[in-house]
Amino acid sequence: MTEVIFQPIGRRIEARPGDTLLEVAQEAGVALSSVCGGVGVCGDCRVRVLRGLVTGLNSTERELLSDADLESGLRLACQVEIEGDGEIVVDVPPDSLSAPQRSQVEGEEIALDVAPVIQLHHLTALPPSVEDLRGDWERMQGIAPSDWDVPAAALADLPAILRRHDWRVRMVTHGRAVVRFLPPTRVPLGFAVDVGTTGLAAYLVDLTNGQTLGIAGATNPQIAYGEDVMARLTLVVRDPAGAGRLQKTIVEGLNGLLREVCDQAGVSTRDVVDVVTVGNTAMHHLLLGLPVEQLGSAPYVPAISSPMVTPAAALGLEVAPDARVYLPPNLAGFVGGDHMAMLLATATADQPGITLSLDIGTNTEVTLNAHGQMWSCSTASGPAFEGAGVQSGMRATEGAIEEVWIDGRDGEPTYRTIGDTPPKGICGSGMISLLGELFVTGMVDKGGRLNRDLDTPRVRLGDDGPEYVLAWAGDSNDGSGSQDGGRDRNNGRDIVLTEADIQNLIRAKGAIYAGFSVLTESVGLTLDDVERIVIGGAFGKYIDVEKAVAIGLLPDVPWERFEYLGNTSIQGAYRALLCRECRAAVTGIGNKMTYLELSADNRFMEQFTSALFLPHTDQASFPSVERELARLAAPPSSEEGGDT
Amino acid sequence: MTEVIFQPIGRRIEARPGDTLLEVAQEAGVALSSVCGGVGVCGDCRVRVLRGLVTGLNSTERELLSDADLESGLRLACQVEIEGDGEIVVDVPPDSLSAPQRSQVEGEEIALDVAPVIQLHHLTALPPSVEDLRGDWERMQGIAPSDWDVPAAALADLPAILRRHDWRVRMVTHGRAVVRFLPPTRVPLGFAVDVGTTGLAAYLVDLTNGQTLGIAGATNPQIAYGEDVMARLTLVVRDPAGAGRLQKTIVEGLNGLLREVCDQAGVSTRDVVDVVTVGNTAMHHLLLGLPVEQLGSAPYVPAISSPMVTPAAALGLEVAPDARVYLPPNLAGFVGGDHMAMLLATATADQPGITLSLDIGTNTEVTLNAHGQMWSCSTASGPAFEGAGVQSGMRATEGAIEEVWIDGRDGEPTYRTIGDTPPKGICGSGMISLLGELFVTGMVDKGGRLNRDLDTPRVRLGDDGPEYVLAWAGDSNDGSGSQDGGRDRNNGRDIVLTEADIQNLIRAKGAIYAGFSVLTESVGLTLDDVERIVIGGAFGKYIDVEKAVAIGLLPDVPWERFEYLGNTSIQGAYRALLCRECRAAVTGIGNKMTYLELSADNRFMEQFTSALFLPHTDQASFPSVERELARLAAPPSSEEGGDT
Repeated sequence: MTEVIFQPIGRRIEARPGDTLLEVAQEAGVALSSVCGGVGVCGDCRVRVLRGLVTGLNSTERELLSDADLESGLRLACQVEIEGDGEIVVDVPPDSLSAPQRSQVEGEEIALDVAPVIQLHHLTALPPSVEDLRGDWERMQGIAPSDWDVPAAALADLPAILRRHDWRVRMVTHGRAVVRFLPPTRVPLGFAVDVGTTGLAAYLVDLTNGQTLGIAGATNPQIAYGEDVMARLTLVVRDPAGAGRLQKTIVEGLNGLLREVCDQAGVSTRDVVDVVTVGNTAMHHLLLGLPVEQLGSAPYVPAISSPMVTPAAALGLEVAPDARVYLPPNLAGFVGGDHMAMLLATATADQPGITLSLDIGTNTEVTLNAHGQMWSCSTASGPAFEGAGVQSGMRATEGAIEEVWIDGRDGEPTYRTIGDTPPKGICGSGMISLLGELFVTGMVDKGGRLNRDLDTPRVRLGDDGPEYVLAWAGDSNDGSGSQDGGRDRNNGRDIVLTEADIQNLIRAKGAIYAGFSVLTESVGLTLDDVERIVIGGAFGKYIDVEKAVAIGLLPDVPWERFEYLGNTSIQGAYRALLCRECRAAVTGIGNKMTYLELSADNRFMEQFTSALFLPHTDQASFPSVERELARLAAPPSSEEGGDT
Repeated sequence: MTEVIFQPIGRRIEARPGDTLLEVAQEAGVALSSVCGGVGVCGDCRVRVLRGLVTGLNSTERELLSDADLESGLRLACQVEIEGDGEIVVDVPPDSLSAPQRSQVEGEEIALDVAPVIQLHHLTALPPSVEDLRGDWERMQGIAPSDWDVPAAALADLPAILRRHDWRVRMVTHGRAVVRFLPPTRVPLGFAVDVGTTGLAAYLVDLTNGQTLGIAGATNPQIAYGEDVMARLTLVVRDPAGAGRLQKTIVEGLNGLLREVCDQAGVSTRDVVDVVTVGNTAMHHLLLGLPVEQLGSAPYVPAISSPMVTPAAALGLEVAPDARVYLPPNLAGFVGGDHMAMLLATATADQPGITLSLDIGTNTEVTLNAHGQMWSCSTASGPAFEGAGVQSGMRATEGAIEEVWIDGRDGEPTYRTIGDTPPKGICGSGMISLLGELFVTGMVDKGGRLNRDLDTPRVRLGDDGPEYVLAWAGDSNDGSGSQDGGRDRNNGRDIVLTEADIQNLIRAKGAIYAGFSVLTESVGLTLDDVERIVIGGAFGKYIDVEKAVAIGLLPDVPWERFEYLGNTSIQGAYRALLCRECRAAVTGIGNKMTYLELSADNRFMEQFTSALFLPHTDQASFPSVERELARLAAPPSSEEGGDT
């Protein structure tokens, strides 16, 4: 028996001698492109056999594959038969997969017709001779050179590619402009980035089929200049050189992510021919080097609201020199393209009934869609739920505690970490879970104070005041192999939640609650009227809705109305990369929305003040929390939550 | 009596109290724009009174000028009357001059309707308020933001300009792309450059009226890497880092010229919104960073022949970050955009009859237009006529000897220098004049050897063999104030012409003569058939046709057929900057031409060998030279040439 392994997809299947690799691939669910149905005519099902016994090159392959293809080891899967036993390893170039296909994004499959803004042209040229002294660009067949703008940097690659690849080349264009020439064996790539105030997330995408080839995240290095948006805007307004420093810092961060995802996929950063970045309006302006004076003072107007397409090279991004960066529109000074990308990814505009979309981050944006009419607002919630500004906070990466259970009898916790590795810190979803558990077990009161009368070493007076110890230093990682840029600072230290952290979390959840409740009231609705609450954010893969309601972050409505979708901004960026119609759609969404400025609204301050308690001053609006507290306060029965 | 001086035009005129500045300007020939005819309606005749007694602001001016205008000192010339005696200095912003007007280029006026590729839009915006939170870009009146691509670098200037200039701004566009925002008081500028193998020349141009605001020249700093094209191509092919070095070097040279012309005009290099560069195909490729391997070896094809428009920032030019560079088409590997620019400037394609166009440089390009059919070729003539590769050679700048007369009786010279300053060296036209005089006076023989039997200290054996001393060190500049980047190396040394220099000049003129004579023969014509010979090149302002014929550089045809037009390449670049139709025209010329590759033509080598004598082996084809030599060899009569 023979086993065939398809790389880099990672599918493994048993096969028999005499089977063709195309048949085996089809059985394994590998969507090899094969227009002719495997009869050796189209030449589409190109693969490389990296290891194992198969039949040799036949005449069909010699005919359909170019010299350069043959030299690079390409075979036609429909012509290659398995010989004998043992393992066969087959490499499937992304190009050989049929498109459109369902694409893998962060474990989720996104259904999408692949129709990116960039276009790919397969061209051949006639070699020069004494009789044909035209320039290389003029000798390309199938295009009229005068129809295209070809910038020098892109053109510089053409002569060598033509001469090394049998006078064949791939031309990548954007509108009428040539972006890059690629050897016929390489694919055009896209780079999607979410530039959050606190965190960055990036995807590397094969633009021919939508496959995600790399994923990376990092802390926004601008955080060194201020944890929230206003701090950074203030820095720039005070110091004329500040804008340049912040711009350089974020571009360095993005180039780091670019190299990371390209290393994962084993490709060149110069093959990235299109970039989408999404971020709030301030991140948008700081990335582009736009002035922010008018953004940081009333009436808070952006330099631009419209979608932008700007040269990547001018920003310093190390992608193809003639690639462009697309940025979705900003609705207003504090509702930016990241939220527009969320609305695109979640198809909010197309939802029937009443939907509330929360994009929880350092600024939290909220959109209410009531039967096709849309309103949105923004609230400065701070970075606590992204793991910044809290003592043991960290991003939702390996080693982050993402769920916590506390035994009400002795205050002892059980927890789960991302990747099931020793704990390094607590991410956003862990904060919600931990604070919720501390509150419902009575270890934290309505005002966010720790109960220090309990007989447990977990509650103690630390350097920064009272704190709860979630994990002892002994439970922690041994400090080796830190990959988190200094954010996993709890190596070798106890992982704690301080009362100051709790106040931070309460202010964050209070601002978010005030935002969506004032927005809903403003249009004459109650939170009960809302049929669907879509949540996006960088908490992690998971959010404990029960605990989020318990601390008053989310409203007390039936849990089935909630839908947590993870980082929806980057998902929207991914869509804008692969689908030119999505770019038009996101502009359409912006045109349909009404922005509500909360800073001019007294009701916001009232609501915010009322929400600075657990779950809220108005306990009647959280009946399920009331019931749970009453149940837990009742004389103990046999079972309680807590054990995994 | 009062004297009014108009700046920066430099016109000075007498006037009387009670005259308006508009009347005085009209009398002085300053073409102040005044659509309403001076009745105080159009508000076009804006000027600034820098010094002198004039009437104060009146109500018409307060009405027609904005606050920002008034603050910047602008007045309406039709409203300002002269008061009392003394000097009045008036600054005329380029904008206030009527266009189209005849433009001053290097002392020559070029008639041209000003219709550049870039467009200028005068816009105003509505200030933001709590009710109007649109972005700055969206609040511009009179344009639809979605019609334009606005890159980040250009956009970055908009918020401050709007707020500092009463919400008024000028928008410069190129096609659908915004290139730059300018304050309402500033004009968009153009930069035209001729990138010669040996010399660079540049103009700074006001794109609203075609006025030349600055002119500068320099040696091409790439000369440090090789004096001719092939030496530089060989360097690049041998050393992979060489291309980058040569590109950096030339861009530094261009940025130096850019700063020089902008300093002359007192303007910012960032206001340069369009650039035209012309050069031979190799200079074109080296400037753009295009590979030259295929250009340096048979069949010598360029990477591109078509005209190009490429981002200036990608090349490193310090102009507006979103400006583009236009480069005219290359006809072939050795007939480039500089020659196409010459044909544009001289309107060669439109000439009736038979015209020969010679663009004499380190490579000399030749085009023959016979009744609308055109052929061209190129020949490697070397840099001798541009003052490089000859011992006392220099560019045609101040201090260069440009004309020489020699007394046949004692060998004593008389000469004239550019700017009538002490001599620093010899420029191209001086070389032609000197060699011609030495030859007709019998001091140099047909083979280019100096007659050492003469009783004069002027002919001597120098370090590099026999040489003629044109100027003693005592005659030379005292060495102070060198402005020629090391090319005026004869400070404090005798200015000489060596036999080696003479051989260099003979090879150069031989290659040029062989080029145009073989091209003419190839199409079945003789040099006698040619009705007009147009000569362009960087010799200087002047060429001594008689001497050029005497040494066999030009054919022996009636002198009235010759026309010397100076640096016609930069004149063509200037046209391409100001006239979008000229860009289409130059592409049209390229499509009508047939290129002749001389390296594959035996007749060229034969003709070249025959032309390595003074004036030529075939003396019969130079009858006028024969006659002159005979006349001078006859027994001396009373007068001979020589004294000024």
